[in-house]
Amino acid sequence: MGNGIRYDPTWESLDTRPLPQWYDDAKIGIFIHWGVYSVPSFGTEWFWSNWKNGSPNYVKFMKDNYPPGFTYQEFAKDFKAEFFDPEAWADLFQKAGAKYVVLTSKHHEGYTLWPSTYSFSWNAKDIGPHRDLVGDLANAIRKNTDLRFGLYHSLYEWFNPMFLADKASNLENNTFAANKVLPELYEIVNKYRPEIVWSDGEWEAPYTYWKSTEFIAWLYNDSPVKNTVVVNDRWGSGDIICHHGDFYTCADRFNPGVLQPHKWENAMTIDKRSWGYRRNSNISDYYTTHELLVIMAQTISCGGNLLMNVGPTSDGRIMPIFQERLLEVGEWLSMNGEAIYGSRPWIHQNETNTNVWYTAKGPTVYATVLDWPKDNVLQLERVEGLFENGRVTTVTLLGNICDVKWDKVGDTVLFYFPDKATVKSQWAWVLRIEPYTVKLPY
Amino acid sequence: MGNGIRYDPTWESLDTRPLPQWYDDAKIGIFIHWGVYSVPSFGTEWFWSNWKNGSPNYVKFMKDNYPPGFTYQEFAKDFKAEFFDPEAWADLFQKAGAKYVVLTSKHHEGYTLWPSTYSFSWNAKDIGPHRDLVGDLANAIRKNTDLRFGLYHSLYEWFNPMFLADKASNLENNTFAANKVLPELYEIVNKYRPEIVWSDGEWEAPYTYWKSTEFIAWLYNDSPVKNTVVVNDRWGSGDIICHHGDFYTCADRFNPGVLQPHKWENAMTIDKRSWGYRRNSNISDYYTTHELLVIMAQTISCGGNLLMNVGPTSDGRIMPIFQERLLEVGEWLSMNGEAIYGSRPWIHQNETNTNVWYTAKGPTVYATVLDWPKDNVLQLERVEGLFENGRVTTVTLLGNICDVKWDKVGDTVLFYFPDKATVKSQWAWVLRIEPYTVKLPY
Amino acid sequence: MGNGIRYDPTWESLDTRPLPQWYDDAKIGIFIHWGVYSVPSFGTEWFWSNWKNGSPNYVKFMKDNYPPGFTYQEFAKDFKAEFFDPEAWADLFQKAGAKYVVLTSKHHEGYTLWPSTYSFSWNAKDIGPHRDLVGDLANAIRKNTDLRFGLYHSLYEWFNPMFLADKASNLENNTFAANKVLPELYEIVNKYRPEIVWSDGEWEAPYTYWKSTEFIAWLYNDSPVKNTVVVNDRWGSGDIICHHGDFYTCADRFNPGVLQPHKWENAMTIDKRSWGYRRNSNISDYYTTHELLVIMAQTISCGGNLLMNVGPTSDGRIMPIFQERLLEVGEWLSMNGEAIYGSRPWIHQNETNTNVWYTAKGPTVYATVLDWPKDNVLQLERVEGLFENGRVTTVTLLGNICDVKWDKVGDTVLFYFPDKATVKSQWAWVLRIEPYTVKLPY
Amino acid sequence: MGNGIRYDPTWESLDTRPLPQWYDDAKIGIFIHWGVYSVPSFGTEWFWSNWKNGSPNYVKFMKDNYPPGFTYQEFAKDFKAEFFDPEAWADLFQKAGAKYVVLTSKHHEGYTLWPSTYSFSWNAKDIGPHRDLVGDLANAIRKNTDLRFGLYHSLYEWFNPMFLADKASNLENNTFAANKVLPELYEIVNKYRPEIVWSDGEWEAPYTYWKSTEFIAWLYNDSPVKNTVVVNDRWGSGDIICHHGDFYTCADRFNPGVLQPHKWENAMTIDKRSWGYRRNSNISDYYTTHELLVIMAQTISCGGNLLMNVGPTSDGRIMPIFQERLLEVGEWLSMNGEAIYGSRPWIHQNETNTNVWYTAKGPTVYATVLDWPKDNVLQLERVEGLFENGRVTTVTLLGNICDVKWDKVGDTVLFYFPDKATVKSQWAWVLRIEPYTVKLPY
Repeated sequence: MGNGIRYDPTWESLDTRPLPQWYDDAKIGIFIHWGVYSVPSFGTEWFWSNWKNGSPNYVKFMKDNYPPGFTYQEFAKDFKAEFFDPEAWADLFQKAGAKYVVLTSKHHEGYTLWPSTYSFSWNAKDIGPHRDLVGDLANAIRKNTDLRFGLYHSLYEWFNPMFLADKASNLENNTFAANKVLPELYEIVNKYRPEIVWSDGEWEAPYTYWKSTEFIAWLYNDSPVKNTVVVNDRWGSGDIICHHGDFYTCADRFNPGVLQPHKWENAMTIDKRSWGYRRNSNISDYYTTHELLVIMAQTISCGGNLLMNVGPTSDGRIMPIFQERLLEVGEWLSMNGEAIYGSRPWIHQNETNTNVWYTAKGPTVYATVLDWPKDNVLQLERVEGLFENGRVTTVTLLGNICDVKWDKVGDTVLFYFPDKATVKSQWAWVLRIEPYTVKLPY
Repeated sequence: MGNGIRYDPTWESLDTRPLPQWYDDAKIGIFIHWGVYSVPSFGTEWFWSNWKNGSPNYVKFMKDNYPPGFTYQEFAKDFKAEFFDPEAWADLFQKAGAKYVVLTSKHHEGYTLWPSTYSFSWNAKDIGPHRDLVGDLANAIRKNTDLRFGLYHSLYEWFNPMFLADKASNLENNTFAANKVLPELYEIVNKYRPEIVWSDGEWEAPYTYWKSTEFIAWLYNDSPVKNTVVVNDRWGSGDIICHHGDFYTCADRFNPGVLQPHKWENAMTIDKRSWGYRRNSNISDYYTTHELLVIMAQTISCGGNLLMNVGPTSDGRIMPIFQERLLEVGEWLSMNGEAIYGSRPWIHQNETNTNVWYTAKGPTVYATVLDWPKDNVLQLERVEGLFENGRVTTVTLLGNICDVKWDKVGDTVLFYFPDKATVKSQWAWVLRIEPYTVKLPY
Repeated sequence: MGNGIRYDPTWESLDTRPLPQWYDDAKIGIFIHWGVYSVPSFGTEWFWSNWKNGSPNYVKFMKDNYPPGFTYQEFAKDFKAEFFDPEAWADLFQKAGAKYVVLTSKHHEGYTLWPSTYSFSWNAKDIGPHRDLVGDLANAIRKNTDLRFGLYHSLYEWFNPMFLADKASNLENNTFAANKVLPELYEIVNKYRPEIVWSDGEWEAPYTYWKSTEFIAWLYNDSPVKNTVVVNDRWGSGDIICHHGDFYTCADRFNPGVLQPHKWENAMTIDKRSWGYRRNSNISDYYTTHELLVIMAQTISCGGNLLMNVGPTSDGRIMPIFQERLLEVGEWLSMNGEAIYGSRPWIHQNETNTNVWYTAKGPTVYATVLDWPKDNVLQLERVEGLFENGRVTTVTLLGNICDVKWDKVGDTVLFYFPDKATVKSQWAWVLRIEPYTVKLPY
Repeated sequence: MGNGIRYDPTWESLDTRPLPQWYDDAKIGIFIHWGVYSVPSFGTEWFWSNWKNGSPNYVKFMKDNYPPGFTYQEFAKDFKAEFFDPEAWADLFQKAGAKYVVLTSKHHEGYTLWPSTYSFSWNAKDIGPHRDLVGDLANAIRKNTDLRFGLYHSLYEWFNPMFLADKASNLENNTFAANKVLPELYEIVNKYRPEIVWSDGEWEAPYTYWKSTEFIAWLYNDSPVKNTVVVNDRWGSGDIICHHGDFYTCADRFNPGVLQPHKWENAMTIDKRSWGYRRNSNISDYYTTHELLVIMAQTISCGGNLLMNVGPTSDGRIMPIFQERLLEVGEWLSMNGEAIYGSRPWIHQNETNTNVWYTAKGPTVYATVLDWPKDNVLQLERVEGLFENGRVTTVTLLGNICDVKWDKVGDTVLFYFPDKATVKSQWAWVLRIEPYTVKLPY
């Protein structure tokens, strides 16, 4: 981090690097899964694998709609991205309140969204969109917003025969890692300077096969993003995930509900059942804005970041239903973001008997109330200490002017909410609880 | 109407037919624009016409994405409807609270959604979906719901050379009307028994050219739907529209805001700018649920029916954003539909100073309140007569148990709304005002 | 024929019309089968019918190569004709020695190669080539050559529901004939002035259904081609074929081998097994040039015209193998055409024991020798009368300068052929036998 | 060659290897150019390069027929090979008299006709034909014929970014050669055991970059085809071509007309202007059978082999015009092959004043006469020595029974040809001149 420290290519050494603060402060990111799977746009982004493994729905879909022998690669031509407007995307993500974006530069299908030197004829420039999707989005994000730009990258590729040959050698050969995976990783970092390298597809081979520690050491020591980059924890089979990396993901949609000892991220999907866009989704498959805010509150309170995924269509659109969700989340954050951005976990994460989650910023505590309290009175058990005798504490409902009245009753505190008809925030409400003397304008 | 009366093929005679009551009671319908324009899915369903007339956006879209010389007809192959699930559509429309459905059997492009005898190779069976879209939807609607099924049908076809030849003869020839339009109209009525025949594309020729009165006379006298069918008012150029027919449409998105002397319908679109599905729409282009309910209240109060349009995609889906709107409207109607279905205009249609619209059912008056009243007190000026001295009047908020308290103050009446946090209805609220003695369960 | 005679719409009357002489003189025509079937280009031009009737090869071809449900109409988009060069075609046909051309304006599929007023969206302008194939070829033929231009036209259409509806009425209705077939026939005659109307697809209905005699009477009396047009004999089911019309075709590939009492035409194919181009053909399926000349000699000797068919590809090419055959036939005709063009059958048509066929022009007799005579001596039995005592007869081998020596031996005449190495004609050789006194330069 | 000799990876050593005799005896091979260029099938197999370099015809073809931005890779999907019948191809090549076949395993486009481990998604299994074209043809050739199977392979790939990156480094990097080219070469040899490795695309880098000598040393020393394989001379820029390799090609269509000091091959095309199939060819673009036999006689007489190229279509056919040429050449060879197969150059290669070319087999000399002699008498100047006083020499016309009479006149010999009408061979005639005593049945 510009301090002259160099890291060795060992987990022991790499794990000593401090987390760049921007990431912990940012809290909210947008994940984008986009690829050739956006063309069949059926089931999930695992379309190819599911189909080839004989999953009946996928087999039937192909049988019903395509000629015999049709291959996955033959979808690529129809990945046209003709409506792709990276500046409109950037604008949307900013309005959603996100502070960073992570785009799939390459998923397990192996198709690269940038014109890779190592994926001739299987990339977005050569077949389909006819443009550098990674570069175009990176430029728009950086030109129009202050969001950070990150890249997802899958180490393994389901059907790349070079990888299958290495596997057939019991990984004694590492031609695929040496000639394909690593050159591409270095290429995207040098070319697009992502501040997040979000690795995936690691589980089929140990990190020694992928040479992950060598790559991360370079990233920390010598890469153009050495001062600000963060990496996740998916760098090899076995006990790497949830144990090494700048932030841990542990599992897809990881949302433990209890405080974690290490910085982590909840990567989840607005369409509950798929990362890639799928046409066969209905409104019931999409989280409501309220549900998203519940997940957000749980995640942030427990020390995580929230990475909400949207799947663009093959013609380059982010569908209105995703726009609606993102803009509503953004609307909520514009009023209540004080409880999220730059916050840290509090000594308690949540209430036991009511759906309330805490964050803190210095002496100030934020309680995110996810259900409007019955009879407009909220009873909290964990905040008693803040209202001890002699302390003068101010309680505010974010977005409202007047203070919230409270009453200490035994070990609990009662909060008297204003008339709901006068409250501006929808879906969830944040109580700011602060000692009188430190009240500062946020 | 089964009473032995026969109508002459003159407007004078046809106009004497009483409106079948079901239509006036139904109030809410779903309009579906689906056709080959759903393939480019760009701009509007007038894609072909706009493109050929040189509209720059359309010309650019074609130039950027298709080879030179590409014709509109060549889109038809990609109208695949592979996800079309008519039973799911029927279910959705029912949940939306609609009482009828109107599907475009043929739009100005001339492509028929049924296997017309008179449109060989330019219909949904021969090219594209490979099925009878009209028949399949009609069957699903009738099997699974009690909604009425109607068909939209365009008299003229932009580019049908048979019509253009008639036009070139100053309509002295009527080959197109005689050999194409009328045979198709008789065919769809006999085959699908629509209870609404929603005519359009009439403006290029007088009703004598289209032989509209002959057709309607047959419809009323001898057709299989003679007892229940209703027709709109688009049957020829000149003073036909807004002057003849079972219900008047007058103009697209007709919403006059004042009581009309004849039964009418507000045919409008949830996507504000297009009837057909268009990919280049954003969330801001869709009416919110609140906006839809405002339009609904205005329409019903002034004696109209509301026909809300959705545009399915070429692969047969009704997009989640449409689903969300329809389901929310349906949710509202499930609580408040008493003010809508079977209602009639009241002596006043609306308040002057506040966004409130009235309907009535016998002595009961319904006030649909579209904005929550400031300080929870609503002041109405038009209902004073219902609260005259000596009358015992009950006021209820639909969906809530307790009566609403009121107070007569001068020429106005004040209504004291309950705590908003306890109210179940969202977006709009209906006050039922009824004389005590006639309280009946609706 | 400009002589003021008018014909009644009866066969009795129509049959009295003299054959326009140009047709009898022309002898050699080119038939062109081109349509949507040129896209699958598999089997024959009856692809659609064979497939739908379950012919295993066709069913397998579709199953192997197309998605389920694919329709024939969906081939039309790929009928691109991008290499169609009508001037090159015209030049080729002229070099082939043809004197007329007959193009399929519409085959049984119903797709029209011109922008028909009555076949909206199922014609070459609307889908596929994006041009008027009939008009473009007509113009090129007339601009660049002196060949006559004719049009093939199928009365019935396999799958046109309008025709199927008439059939279902036991032909009591004739909507299809009245509204589709006849308007199109009048349209192509008025628009393209074909001098041959080559009717087909007549067998499913009597000529009274097709109103054929009315059409032909108009053609003879009032059409723009009334003076020169000729029609074939396929105008209705039953005893029309081979009994009425300017020339008889009797059957496909009709080649009776004996003199016919009425002008006729041998319509045959260079690809022995198909009229439309088919990709699954091999060199053995194509007649050799020698075989074509055998058929030509047989046909002309018996009073027929020869209409040799080629099937262009969907991209508008006449394949090199067809070019080679046509150019070799043309090369032969450029040397030997004197025995063909303007000739008439002789009193004998052929020899019994050797492959020799006769034609005549006034007193001159032509013997087309299809196999080089053993030991260079040809023995003929039928020509004895031309060499009777006292007659001075000159015998020439067309293309060679020196006279052919001959010797009368009993009832036969021996002809002493020159050294084959010195003879210019290939494949077949024509002996011109003429009385000395009438030798004229042809 | 099984004799225990090992070769060093130097030209000096490799050049010492004796030519496997089968190749010198075989004389006649078939070259097959098949690839993605067979889809546009326009111009030549250099379509991609010509287009991208701005050649006007190619640019216009793309502009006229494809949407803007269409890429070459997007043609691959339409390379369907649905009519590819490798057994029929094998049968055709055998009937053509060929003794070996060379198929383009990969041309400069980089697309591999086999499922390469190193060309994921840009090979015939992954996109287009869905099969291993190399393997399928190899199997059919070996199963049904005794022809040898060879593979063409292009070292460079026009647009492979890995190669372009190496070039940009002034070839200081050789990532492309090391990770792509060589692994593929080893793969095809091990997998398909080609007995000819026909290298091309060598000119952009020296053989040291390609590591050609290492590869050839392995081929000669250790490969599964070490005993029989032959390689050509295209292995690096500069003075490699025409200087090293088992046989020299020197240039495309190399036909020097004089005896060469080293075994060589004339690789030429039946379509004079293209190796790949092109739709825009006419019959005049194809060599006639006579022209092919002229080239064959010249080539064999000067010590070369003849490799005649055909370009299959993208749907897997060898067009009838190619079939016709090949079968006629095969017909000629079936009668006259004695002068070709197993022959060696004679002391003279040809006559000066007449189109006659010589070969020899032991003491027997063959004179291939390409034009029928005037007055049936052929005068030769170079064979005088064979007819010296006292020698008893027999002269035969291959395919005819009777001896050919001859006469020594001064320094020349006159040969009296039989009546042409009795001669069976077409296009060209072979005189076998042999000392009486060594007449053996060949």
